[in-house]
Amino acid sequence: MTYSAFDHPYLSGLLGDEAVAAEFSVAADIRAMLSFEAALARAEAQHGVIPHAAADRITEACRGFSPDVAALRRTTAIDGVVVPELVRQLRLAVGEAAAEHVHFGATSQDTTDTSLMLRLKAIAELFAARLGTVVSALEDCDRQWGQRPLTGHTRMQPAIPITVADRLRSWVEPLLDHQDRLEAMEGDLFAVQFGGAAGTLEKLKDKADAVRETLAEELSLIDWPQWHSQRSAIADFVHLLSLITGSLGKFGQDVALMAQAGDEIVLSGGGGSSAMAHKQNPVAAEVLVALARFNATQVSGIHQALVHEQERSGAAWTLEWLLLPQVVGATAASLRLAADLAGNIRRLGRL
Amino acid sequence: MTYSAFDHPYLSGLLGDEAVAAEFSVAADIRAMLSFEAALARAEAQHGVIPHAAADRITEACRGFSPDVAALRRTTAIDGVVVPELVRQLRLAVGEAAAEHVHFGATSQDTTDTSLMLRLKAIAELFAARLGTVVSALEDCDRQWGQRPLTGHTRMQPAIPITVADRLRSWVEPLLDHQDRLEAMEGDLFAVQFGGAAGTLEKLKDKADAVRETLAEELSLIDWPQWHSQRSAIADFVHLLSLITGSLGKFGQDVALMAQAGDEIVLSGGGGSSAMAHKQNPVAAEVLVALARFNATQVSGIHQALVHEQERSGAAWTLEWLLLPQVVGATAASLRLAADLAGNIRRLGRL
Amino acid sequence: MTYSAFDHPYLSGLLGDEAVAAEFSVAADIRAMLSFEAALARAEAQHGVIPHAAADRITEACRGFSPDVAALRRTTAIDGVVVPELVRQLRLAVGEAAAEHVHFGATSQDTTDTSLMLRLKAIAELFAARLGTVVSALEDCDRQWGQRPLTGHTRMQPAIPITVADRLRSWVEPLLDHQDRLEAMEGDLFAVQFGGAAGTLEKLKDKADAVRETLAEELSLIDWPQWHSQRSAIADFVHLLSLITGSLGKFGQDVALMAQAGDEIVLSGGGGSSAMAHKQNPVAAEVLVALARFNATQVSGIHQALVHEQERSGAAWTLEWLLLPQVVGATAASLRLAADLAGNIRRLGRL
Amino acid sequence: MTYSAFDHPYLSGLLGDEAVAAEFSVAADIRAMLSFEAALARAEAQHGVIPHAAADRITEACRGFSPDVAALRRTTAIDGVVVPELVRQLRLAVGEAAAEHVHFGATSQDTTDTSLMLRLKAIAELFAARLGTVVSALEDCDRQWGQRPLTGHTRMQPAIPITVADRLRSWVEPLLDHQDRLEAMEGDLFAVQFGGAAGTLEKLKDKADAVRETLAEELSLIDWPQWHSQRSAIADFVHLLSLITGSLGKFGQDVALMAQAGDEIVLSGGGGSSAMAHKQNPVAAEVLVALARFNATQVSGIHQALVHEQERSGAAWTLEWLLLPQVVGATAASLRLAADLAGNIRRLGRL
Repeated sequence: MTYSAFDHPYLSGLLGDEAVAAEFSVAADIRAMLSFEAALARAEAQHGVIPHAAADRITEACRGFSPDVAALRRTTAIDGVVVPELVRQLRLAVGEAAAEHVHFGATSQDTTDTSLMLRLKAIAELFAARLGTVVSALEDCDRQWGQRPLTGHTRMQPAIPITVADRLRSWVEPLLDHQDRLEAMEGDLFAVQFGGAAGTLEKLKDKADAVRETLAEELSLIDWPQWHSQRSAIADFVHLLSLITGSLGKFGQDVALMAQAGDEIVLSGGGGSSAMAHKQNPVAAEVLVALARFNATQVSGIHQALVHEQERSGAAWTLEWLLLPQVVGATAASLRLAADLAGNIRRLGRL
Repeated sequence: MTYSAFDHPYLSGLLGDEAVAAEFSVAADIRAMLSFEAALARAEAQHGVIPHAAADRITEACRGFSPDVAALRRTTAIDGVVVPELVRQLRLAVGEAAAEHVHFGATSQDTTDTSLMLRLKAIAELFAARLGTVVSALEDCDRQWGQRPLTGHTRMQPAIPITVADRLRSWVEPLLDHQDRLEAMEGDLFAVQFGGAAGTLEKLKDKADAVRETLAEELSLIDWPQWHSQRSAIADFVHLLSLITGSLGKFGQDVALMAQAGDEIVLSGGGGSSAMAHKQNPVAAEVLVALARFNATQVSGIHQALVHEQERSGAAWTLEWLLLPQVVGATAASLRLAADLAGNIRRLGRL
Repeated sequence: MTYSAFDHPYLSGLLGDEAVAAEFSVAADIRAMLSFEAALARAEAQHGVIPHAAADRITEACRGFSPDVAALRRTTAIDGVVVPELVRQLRLAVGEAAAEHVHFGATSQDTTDTSLMLRLKAIAELFAARLGTVVSALEDCDRQWGQRPLTGHTRMQPAIPITVADRLRSWVEPLLDHQDRLEAMEGDLFAVQFGGAAGTLEKLKDKADAVRETLAEELSLIDWPQWHSQRSAIADFVHLLSLITGSLGKFGQDVALMAQAGDEIVLSGGGGSSAMAHKQNPVAAEVLVALARFNATQVSGIHQALVHEQERSGAAWTLEWLLLPQVVGATAASLRLAADLAGNIRRLGRL
Repeated sequence: MTYSAFDHPYLSGLLGDEAVAAEFSVAADIRAMLSFEAALARAEAQHGVIPHAAADRITEACRGFSPDVAALRRTTAIDGVVVPELVRQLRLAVGEAAAEHVHFGATSQDTTDTSLMLRLKAIAELFAARLGTVVSALEDCDRQWGQRPLTGHTRMQPAIPITVADRLRSWVEPLLDHQDRLEAMEGDLFAVQFGGAAGTLEKLKDKADAVRETLAEELSLIDWPQWHSQRSAIADFVHLLSLITGSLGKFGQDVALMAQAGDEIVLSGGGGSSAMAHKQNPVAAEVLVALARFNATQVSGIHQALVHEQERSGAAWTLEWLLLPQVVGATAASLRLAADLAGNIRRLGRL
């Protein structure tokens, strides 16, 4: 029962990535949602919105809490979001005295979007490190074969002689830029979401800003007024991931073209054919192109999802859920395959 | 470890569909690939290409065969397709005498694409029936409230009085057309794929066309020359599924707008909010819009995948794998939710 | 002042097409809209809805009428459609006696969409003929070099020997299919649009169906109940054009790859470089790929435009206007360039 | 002969923008390309690459030069770019003595991409100012009706009371962010392109970096190593424009929904209908949604164009030309219409 190549029983061998998949597991999502609920309780207690004892009880309950996932599934079918039932179960676990203080002043989107930000932040760190790995492998190539001659090609035709280093520069430079941007996002993109029923935090009265600030601090996210219907940050993140897969797609395309020409690259680790024993297919190179085109496709849907209705759109928001994890999965696969491919280069340039 | 909302542990309550997911399970894929291998052996035996005894042995082995999925995963990582390893394992299971006759003259894409066609054909039947269910539910609405007055709206403004039947017609007519088209595909779209290493069936010499014809018959698919790099049929199928979700998205959009206006529809089964106990959100209606926009996004990627290089493109083909199952999943969810939503209408039009 | 490469003062040398551009000229649009108004008057007179004298007067006025385009521009800015002002001007031209019978029972979308269908029908004929030209040129190649050897390539690697005829078949077959489909559209796609204010033709009472049938006949379009908010036909047309550019993009991609490898194709007519006098760039081949990817992009927006609100959506409809002409322009360019490219092949296959 | 609604004889009343169209005129493009050629000559003279007299002569010739556009059109059909012929004509105009120093060391893409950057920079300034106009109009609304009650809506259902100021904040905040980003692009995005035949500036030897730095200074662009095949900056610009139209699309969607509900907004300037005299259609609001969805569609194609082959891809680059001007045109229309719409609000919120 598997629709996605990124966690498919055998396609995941080619297209999966366990570390990243773990951040999109239900366990990780629930853990992050509970972090939000616990941090919210503590922040509200600190500013006198709920009793300290309640916050302690909620924090403790969140720590050990394991929800009934079958019930979550059943109710998500009706509510369209998991949070109402998760909060209901959590209130039972917390017990009568503190139950009413759980999720106080918050709405489903606060919990869901903040959970997403926590996990995307972890993924950004992972991806920045992966970019580093690809860059290192390509810098190794530069050290080994950078001075060798290569035929520059423009418009699919031989142009003038260049060096391997010249070609490598066009592969590496964008990756360094993307890595910088991923790292900058820690400080300017991954923000807490907290707005309450319609974005006004009406139940927190004059404590609203202070609670949100503390909440952000507790979660190591940046503090930002609610962005229920303002989705630029999501679009920025997806845009950057698609730049990454686009740059790696260009690398893959170039390798596939060099492998076809045959005299300027030697690769190990090519794939076999069920019909032709002699072939060494540049599978990873081709898949990098496929992943670039996949993300380029998805980025359009994320931009469609900018058109929220009123204070919050169920349609635009659900559309994000269908698209964003796929983009992350494709980027994870692309980074892993690019590192493999760069590591499998046995020679670049002519002798 | 789940990227796709369509088989997500709790989002699948909203967005999943078990019957359709089953056709995209690994079990179904392997079963269909083994059907191809067995049918191929029988067709080749019938035309004297391989011995009858070998075909019998292969058919029997395929019946009981259960591959080592971990090994499939490991090798797909290298080969980019599952078939070389599947065939290797199958040859072992078949035993020495007939092993060389397994997959004779075929290539990985033959097995993979034919398996896909077999499963899409089953899905088309399922979807045609589901469209019937939605149409029935809307025809029920017509019988109950068809003659009631409704305000026609154009450009988001009240226009002139119409009837409920008029609005219903704009919902139902496209669905009937889509149902006809799905049914016609049985006879003109779901075709066997069989071309061998580079599409020329060179190993079958003058028996090639006859074997392919028999193979198609064995599998109840239409006979068609190899289409390794000609993907119109895939694009046609995805186009039609996106027309279906588009038409149902229009239905969902209309219901959401009527529910917002408040006086021309009564719905049961709305979703709850974690912040506002009084709300009845038209969740299914909104999700129909999200699914329409999701498929409209994916259809672009499928058209990008038309640009195959030479006899077969790994890049374009892998791109299809990333997109097509998602489109099927979204359509399954859309049809299920539309039937639910139509069934939850308690009144249409004004009293 | 030109945004579109298809009618750009110098890019149109590469990307334009005069015959097709003429069908998207304002003159052609106005002529087609006036055909609708005149045919409507005649159909309504025939069924006794308006006086015969009025229909004669309207027909005569439409024949010689040339609207004030500056006024059309000014009012389209306010009304969002050109028809209210066009009808106002036409009523003045028709004169007092028959003025009230102009556009009787119709709405702006009837005039606009029917005009579009008339022009798309002409374009379909043109494109079918162009496909014939490309096919002929490729069949010429087959006659000259079909039996020569070519290296089949799969996954960007040499596979096994094939013939030029084998490769040509994968280029030609989809084009023949697309040509058949374009021709079939005359009988099943290009339909009159006639629904009145909210699709119910309420002003025509029991004459509605008869008038629409006669109107369709007058315009040589098929008769079909109003499709204001049901846009499958538009999506089908765009889908087919994108299949055409996709198939020609595959041809272009293959030629570019062959030109890069250098020994299996000889082309004349390549483009020059401002930096390298020796180069012969396969410009047309590359542009075919660009046009395929362009249309694959637009097809997504056309599917987004399926989600109409209520009886008619200004948003979804305006979105079509932004996309559809571009797709037609890209297809025209693709067909012209493909014919040129096929005609510029001086040798295929090895000696 | 017009494909694009943005410069269409009457649709441009609704969708055009003269100031922005001027930057995409052929005159502006040629002027910018000649600026590049003149600045290049001066920079090369300053660093001793060409004689000062030649640079003076080239600068002077560029000032008065008006190319033969018909010849540009004819040759673009063959070369795929306008520059070879433009340079040929310019050399004739410059005269024999300095002719060989024109365009020295440069390639077509240097001229074309730098011209694009010069014009996009002007457009960014224009758009930043336009965003300011929209923001001002919305801030006026805030001053007049900010404290009035409004019903917050989530998931298309009434939620809780909010104020007009709360809704306005969700419209204005993203616009302020987009304005900041447009302004920041002056310092970090609009870069000179200069790489020569294959990106290595091989003809300039050790003067290459110095010439490029001076060239950038001459043109008031930032200095950046050649980015022939690295298109992130183009994608970043398009991404931001699509964020702008997305945010304005959300504004338009909200206004259209409020106009439909009828009691929380009063608008002037609505559009008329050819069928219903009583209607006041919120045309601008709807068109904002259409433009958002249009740009969301195009952004996908721009990401597809990241996959350049080798040192320069004719296919990916031509694809940009087909997409980018359209995105700019849509954004121009969106900003103009949003300012109009905001200015046409006569009341927000309930009395």
